[in-house]
Amino acid sequence: MSTDNAPRSDKTEARRPRGLPDRGPADIMATEAMMATIREVYQRYGFDPVETPFLEYTDALGKFLPDQDRPNAGVFSLRDDDEQWMSLRYDLTAPLARYCAENWQNLPKPYRSYRAGWVFRNEKPGPGRFRQFMQFDADTVGAASVAADAEICMMAADTMEALGIPRGAYVIKVNNRKILDGVMEAIGLGGEENAARRLIVLRALDKADKFDWPEIVKLLGPGRRDESGDFTKGADLDNGQIDALGSFMKGSIKISQVKDGPTTVTTRFPAFEGPNFRENRLYMDGIYELESIISLTTAASYGHDRIRADFSVVRGLEYYTGPVFEAELLFEVKDEDGRPVRFGSVGGGGRYDGLVSRFLNEPVPATGFSIGVSRLLAALQALGKVSTKPLDGPVLVLAMDRDVTAMASYQKIVAELRAAGIRAEIYLGSAGMKAQMKYADRRASPIAIIQGSNEREKGTAQVKDLILGATLSATKDREEYLALQARAQFEVPVDGLVQGIRDVLARQRG
Amino acid sequence: MSTDNAPRSDKTEARRPRGLPDRGPADIMATEAMMATIREVYQRYGFDPVETPFLEYTDALGKFLPDQDRPNAGVFSLRDDDEQWMSLRYDLTAPLARYCAENWQNLPKPYRSYRAGWVFRNEKPGPGRFRQFMQFDADTVGAASVAADAEICMMAADTMEALGIPRGAYVIKVNNRKILDGVMEAIGLGGEENAARRLIVLRALDKADKFDWPEIVKLLGPGRRDESGDFTKGADLDNGQIDALGSFMKGSIKISQVKDGPTTVTTRFPAFEGPNFRENRLYMDGIYELESIISLTTAASYGHDRIRADFSVVRGLEYYTGPVFEAELLFEVKDEDGRPVRFGSVGGGGRYDGLVSRFLNEPVPATGFSIGVSRLLAALQALGKVSTKPLDGPVLVLAMDRDVTAMASYQKIVAELRAAGIRAEIYLGSAGMKAQMKYADRRASPIAIIQGSNEREKGTAQVKDLILGATLSATKDREEYLALQARAQFEVPVDGLVQGIRDVLARQRG
Repeated sequence: MSTDNAPRSDKTEARRPRGLPDRGPADIMATEAMMATIREVYQRYGFDPVETPFLEYTDALGKFLPDQDRPNAGVFSLRDDDEQWMSLRYDLTAPLARYCAENWQNLPKPYRSYRAGWVFRNEKPGPGRFRQFMQFDADTVGAASVAADAEICMMAADTMEALGIPRGAYVIKVNNRKILDGVMEAIGLGGEENAARRLIVLRALDKADKFDWPEIVKLLGPGRRDESGDFTKGADLDNGQIDALGSFMKGSIKISQVKDGPTTVTTRFPAFEGPNFRENRLYMDGIYELESIISLTTAASYGHDRIRADFSVVRGLEYYTGPVFEAELLFEVKDEDGRPVRFGSVGGGGRYDGLVSRFLNEPVPATGFSIGVSRLLAALQALGKVSTKPLDGPVLVLAMDRDVTAMASYQKIVAELRAAGIRAEIYLGSAGMKAQMKYADRRASPIAIIQGSNEREKGTAQVKDLILGATLSATKDREEYLALQARAQFEVPVDGLVQGIRDVLARQRG
Repeated sequence: MSTDNAPRSDKTEARRPRGLPDRGPADIMATEAMMATIREVYQRYGFDPVETPFLEYTDALGKFLPDQDRPNAGVFSLRDDDEQWMSLRYDLTAPLARYCAENWQNLPKPYRSYRAGWVFRNEKPGPGRFRQFMQFDADTVGAASVAADAEICMMAADTMEALGIPRGAYVIKVNNRKILDGVMEAIGLGGEENAARRLIVLRALDKADKFDWPEIVKLLGPGRRDESGDFTKGADLDNGQIDALGSFMKGSIKISQVKDGPTTVTTRFPAFEGPNFRENRLYMDGIYELESIISLTTAASYGHDRIRADFSVVRGLEYYTGPVFEAELLFEVKDEDGRPVRFGSVGGGGRYDGLVSRFLNEPVPATGFSIGVSRLLAALQALGKVSTKPLDGPVLVLAMDRDVTAMASYQKIVAELRAAGIRAEIYLGSAGMKAQMKYADRRASPIAIIQGSNEREKGTAQVKDLILGATLSATKDREEYLALQARAQFEVPVDGLVQGIRDVLARQRG
């Protein structure tokens, strides 16, 4: 160790890799409080916690590059000592699929589980875009019934309300991937040979909450160049196809009543519905599943104000196979330029019937929902529903003398305060009185305890009310000042200190 | 997605990399409960939470191989897109040092903080040895005074007791690295040129709780070959040096009373103290610091039964510069061969004055303590101080019919139970009645709710007490059987269901 104060070039620079943030007390404690509420709701729905490790084999995550033995550049990957590729988990769904497949014989079926965890994206970080962030997921694996999807939607709605988001300020939007897939078939984008183009279309439509329609049109057509000059390849649709998709997507859907099956759909669309849509099997299945979900949620008293069908919900992920959901917050916040914008999505999910059966020789249907933890926390903060104040400041015992006898006396005082449940510290630095009072201020300490050699000999200590003390200088009247001063600092015997501190804390809390 | 049931070779294998475990509900919930208690103690001591990301630049962790630009094989490392090496954190101390250095201007000084987090070791996993595990750390950065070390020791003792470990079943052992460094100087192992050998000696002595002394002697001497044939290089000490170290280490220390400074040490050693030890400055400083810590803890009423000096505490880490501590559990558990052994260490720490100043042009003294979370949890489980039962089983609404009308009715029932705070599920699979009852058993459901078409038309449901039901078959007396049977399953109107369930749950809880 060097105690040399001269600049030295061999010092290591203290720096973080981009997009990997530290977290302070307010963020940690608010997140923990929020997650405790979410856990409570999920447990009430019969979900159990289960967690997977941070690293998985890259093939288990499905993250190899097409036709290559190298992992996708979007994930953080490294080789294990036996040369196998491992990756940091990209989301919590792929590891859960691995877990369920590995333990399928021993799990209750259907299997409801939840987990919160950090996920990692090896992507360009930006404002509000991190390479490490937290998700809170719940999944039902082994249930083919849309009742499982309906349950997830109701649980999402209950979660929003349990967190203090008022009814009307959020909505759970439901759609079905089969509907859009059917529309795509109907406009000539069906079949294996169009799979890659369909994914481009889905990702383009999923950007509808970020971009205006003319920008989406570029992504559906020849491609789009952003401000930085980066070019995103388009789906190369013709104008007729783009218009059909656009008219359909911009419509809304009012679910009326579901009958026996996909052949007797009674839904009315104010939206554009192409002439051949209802002859498409996928389309009709999707409509039926969507209607069934809304019937189930309506029956359980979750009205259209809480859970509703909406064709604009797309979800850009490849693996969804049926119902898709999005939890959207409807209240407005100011954007970077001070304009009011809807808060938008704080979570989403859907059915992924292929993800577990990728590992198994049997179909294992599954559905789930994922909350973006920091995004939801930001929403609660905007609504004033979560404390941004971390912990109460500690009572501070000043270090007036630093010999072992004096320090032992301070340790005794602070140990008694802590044993009485009072948050307390000794000043452990080497600075003088003025810096110690500054430290008390920095720590938001409500009270300082001062024991010089005089007090130590008498077996007493001074109690200084730092909150009352701060108001003293504003007091003009002399008698009032003296009265206040006497209450702001007083001497007590050491064995009466706990009570004295308790009295001041009670006074401060009103 | 394939629904093909024939074995297929293109299925991905569901497997985890070695030493990276999944975690189930009992483990997650017990760990969370334990950590909540630890957090509470740490907060009472004035410590605030702060967390760092999982990936750091390898140079910030000090994990490059000597004289090479490649990271140590013991850490998981990968290159960022700008070719800089990053590593998964190996412990929580090195990232905290980076954090403190990066934010030093804006932190309260001294800075007390705590954090729980996963750390990663790219080492050979084995029984009880994982490549991902959790630590719970607390650190005081910017305090040179041994009062900070004493505080950490008292906090560790309070933590053990807050977790339910009785006084006498644990001890916080304190030593000082300077004492052993002084002894090494005295036996001719001083100076820069012996730094590597000293580290080998420290690591060898740190194994004293795992190995018998003759094995340690091999590590101090020519080296040791283990059962698997792996060879560990030794420190190449001669017999005189080994004997001196052995005699010293095996002694115990009784701290009497500390006077003014390192020149007037009054400690009495029943242990071997070499003839020239007391002429060694490091040795005397170490003794004085150790005595000061014990004086401070004793003054705060932490007696030798809780915190005591012990020369056998070494801590194998290179970066410790002064006081070192170890939290040891004294009760016995059975080892693999059924022999009683002491539970041993559940945490440790010490002063690392060089770690933050590695980044800065000023000395930043620091001290900390780290708990091995799963090891401590295992101890609490051995003591019966933590629940190994996860959550209460959910009330199960059986799926008697699966049309939308029936499922909607079940959803309504389960939604009302959940709204009343009762953990409840619908059976969402496709299996019949028998498999559903097996599912209820698997989920430890206390109650099943059964509503067939008859009950649905009447607006009622059957409530089945699964715990009472399980005792029915053991009942011989016919009248008693019928009376029990009537209580074990009964019909209630749907709007009386919540109350009916509450009554049964109350009865079950006695």
